[in-house]
Amino acid sequence: MNYGMVFYILGWILRIESVLLLLPGAVGLIYHEKAAWLFFLVAGLALLLSFVLTWRKPKNTKVYGRDGFTVVALAWIVMSLIGALPFTLSGDIPFYLDAVFETVSGFTTTGASILPAVENLNKCCLFWRSFTHWVGGMGIFVFMLAVVPLLGGSTFNLMKAESPGPIIGKFVPKIKDSSLILYTIYMVITVSEFLLLWLFGMPLFEAICHTFGTVGTGGFGVKNSGYTEYAPILQNITTFFMIACGINFQFYFYLKDRKWREAVGMSEVKAYLGIILVSIALVTVNVRGLYGSLSETVRHAAFQIGTIITTTGYATTDFDLWPKFSQCILIILMMVGACAGSTGGGIKVSRIVILIKTIAKEIESIIHPRAVKKIQFDGATVAHETVRNTSVFFGVYFMIFFLSLLVVSIDNFDFTTSFTAVAATLNNIGPGLAKVGPTQNFGFYSWHAKCVFIFDMLAGRLEIFPMLLLFAPSSWKRYT
Amino acid sequence: MNYGMVFYILGWILRIESVLLLLPGAVGLIYHEKAAWLFFLVAGLALLLSFVLTWRKPKNTKVYGRDGFTVVALAWIVMSLIGALPFTLSGDIPFYLDAVFETVSGFTTTGASILPAVENLNKCCLFWRSFTHWVGGMGIFVFMLAVVPLLGGSTFNLMKAESPGPIIGKFVPKIKDSSLILYTIYMVITVSEFLLLWLFGMPLFEAICHTFGTVGTGGFGVKNSGYTEYAPILQNITTFFMIACGINFQFYFYLKDRKWREAVGMSEVKAYLGIILVSIALVTVNVRGLYGSLSETVRHAAFQIGTIITTTGYATTDFDLWPKFSQCILIILMMVGACAGSTGGGIKVSRIVILIKTIAKEIESIIHPRAVKKIQFDGATVAHETVRNTSVFFGVYFMIFFLSLLVVSIDNFDFTTSFTAVAATLNNIGPGLAKVGPTQNFGFYSWHAKCVFIFDMLAGRLEIFPMLLLFAPSSWKRYT
Repeated sequence: MNYGMVFYILGWILRIESVLLLLPGAVGLIYHEKAAWLFFLVAGLALLLSFVLTWRKPKNTKVYGRDGFTVVALAWIVMSLIGALPFTLSGDIPFYLDAVFETVSGFTTTGASILPAVENLNKCCLFWRSFTHWVGGMGIFVFMLAVVPLLGGSTFNLMKAESPGPIIGKFVPKIKDSSLILYTIYMVITVSEFLLLWLFGMPLFEAICHTFGTVGTGGFGVKNSGYTEYAPILQNITTFFMIACGINFQFYFYLKDRKWREAVGMSEVKAYLGIILVSIALVTVNVRGLYGSLSETVRHAAFQIGTIITTTGYATTDFDLWPKFSQCILIILMMVGACAGSTGGGIKVSRIVILIKTIAKEIESIIHPRAVKKIQFDGATVAHETVRNTSVFFGVYFMIFFLSLLVVSIDNFDFTTSFTAVAATLNNIGPGLAKVGPTQNFGFYSWHAKCVFIFDMLAGRLEIFPMLLLFAPSSWKRYT
Repeated sequence: MNYGMVFYILGWILRIESVLLLLPGAVGLIYHEKAAWLFFLVAGLALLLSFVLTWRKPKNTKVYGRDGFTVVALAWIVMSLIGALPFTLSGDIPFYLDAVFETVSGFTTTGASILPAVENLNKCCLFWRSFTHWVGGMGIFVFMLAVVPLLGGSTFNLMKAESPGPIIGKFVPKIKDSSLILYTIYMVITVSEFLLLWLFGMPLFEAICHTFGTVGTGGFGVKNSGYTEYAPILQNITTFFMIACGINFQFYFYLKDRKWREAVGMSEVKAYLGIILVSIALVTVNVRGLYGSLSETVRHAAFQIGTIITTTGYATTDFDLWPKFSQCILIILMMVGACAGSTGGGIKVSRIVILIKTIAKEIESIIHPRAVKKIQFDGATVAHETVRNTSVFFGVYFMIFFLSLLVVSIDNFDFTTSFTAVAATLNNIGPGLAKVGPTQNFGFYSWHAKCVFIFDMLAGRLEIFPMLLLFAPSSWKRYT
């Protein structure tokens, strides 16, 4: 490992976080909350640490593949440990482990909470909770690469480690430009949703926080009633933006450049929207009779499908009361997740598409053993490494899933609770079913279960391998 | 597809089945049951069909890879359809679909039943039920290749399609000899267990049926109380033989040849026994207090672990009442399954070992991108195809798992029931948890759920790909 560079990058991440912390501080000042000063305090602390770490620019600025993975994993952990401090210092979340859970849940855009009620929290803490979604959604490294004048050409390995999906699209040759474009698109979507929510009657503060929660596909709310009491139009706007943020951002890049044909041709986006439409249709038929009218049924079906497949986690209705068939659809969509290169989590639609093509190829190779066929994806051949990595991803995904389930089940809650709790954290969704259903929270779990969930949320957001690399002794070896 | 050869092989399979059907017929005669004659009737029918199908020996006797897969899948389906007839004709299982479920469950050594009570069945039907376990355990093709003077050298493709596990071991150069050795070992184990059970006091008929159920790792019983009321020594004997039959038979082949070092060196067997020991220890600690003494606790833990990992499905205690941690261990072991080349089902320990090595290699390849490393297994390099097929296997396994879960959940039973019902059938175990727990049965499910379970049992026994090939149009194409 290039330790010098790892510390240097961690330093820069902390400097960014210290700036980010000023925002909730400012919000706190507006609402005359004492807790505001804690954000400035922690921001100062982060800045101090940052200066120590970036004191000397390392001579060797090369970031190798494995360094990219480990530094990204470390950065997300450090960010969360620092970001959790204001919650505990303000007394809003007295136990530090709970605060770390909440912050990791925020940055990883999971939206699982240990809080039974959110309305008596400080406004600045509520804002910070939602703001972490926004930051984590597009990624802190993507942001860093856009704004920090950093060092040499090997920054691609950082982007690769943080960006979700099996294939990393570079929109333009320079990483810095790619990052800027991504954040510009992200900003446009954010502002659009905020304005729409606000214009259609959502109070300002709530509109801001829910926009962060939606575009980051996070799911933290600011009201105990969640999304249930908002007007149908506000629910529909949110459905639209959730689904929009689960689309591969490459799609918007094509739109921006008026490359309509390329945009419409993206097979992942087509598969993603197809899955959503079929699921909405199936659920609508299945839950008919639970709601008054067809339009209400479709609205709830669409919102819940959108919230689960994009791994956001808001809810307009308690889907824990839905028939099991609809719940099973939700459980499957929890794992499928959104598109690669979006702010959503889960396994990713493109991986499912590649898997299905791999299975078809495997069957084909039994029928025609000598035929050599390559897997195609959007007109290009998928690299052998990508196919292999995708197949391995499924294996490691389910291995972590079941190991987590095993440890969590020590707490002796029913199978549905434990299973969906792991699914909801590993896929960065938020709520599960039964005791962790949309009207419930994770507070009752033991500390060791919470540690598993924290690991799973980070593993889910960073797509497992960066977190696993932390446990490989050879990734800690100094380069000679 | 080489249709001539497919029909010819199906014909031979039916001829073997017609002979097998004479055995329950004879048992029925001993007990003076009228139903006995139905077995002779069905045997005659199968023989007739067999003569029609084998009337002309095809000119082209070559069995290609894909023909091997499809003919094996078809044979298992035909065998089950014919084997189900006596149940329905005798009135013991009035609905034919239920009878097919029961027969498939028998041949695939699943042991899941739709019968709420078994004691009022005809003895000949009970015998047939258990006997199908014995036949399906080692495999009907393995048997056929040992006894039928068949045709050319391409029989390996039949063996490959039916034998469980990612790597097919040929003990000796000739398939026919391999098959003979396998069935000899199988017979020795069968007779040993029967004698031990009988000598230690189990009634003759019960000892025979339970021996079939154990060595085939099936799980059908002949008493409503299952294994709960037998003496501890009988339970322990069964535990031993269940675990013994979950071991790769290559192990016994080494023992027979006194190759002690090779036998002890088999990494799959070591992993398998290691998993069993660790699981027994964990469960013993977890369920302490539920039973009177330590020895009783260990006995129940060992029996239940043995029954689940080998996918047998007997039970000495209602593990649905165990704490969730122990239940979670059972659910994971359900999927892990026994060794390749054994009579047990599940994913197979060797696949798990290869998966873990593949993951380690993937991590290694991130750390050292240019290092080329091959995966080793028992001193030999695992072929690239095997690694790929294993990774794909996990993907397709979980895809079928969740699709099955989706269809089954239409019946609207709780998640634990549906999840473990799919796990119990796809892994050929038998009982699950909750409504399909060890004291329950599958009778209450709808016909479409039962169809899914029938598919899953066959897919589990034949390791998925043969069943999938049936759905690929190109596998039905005639060779030109």
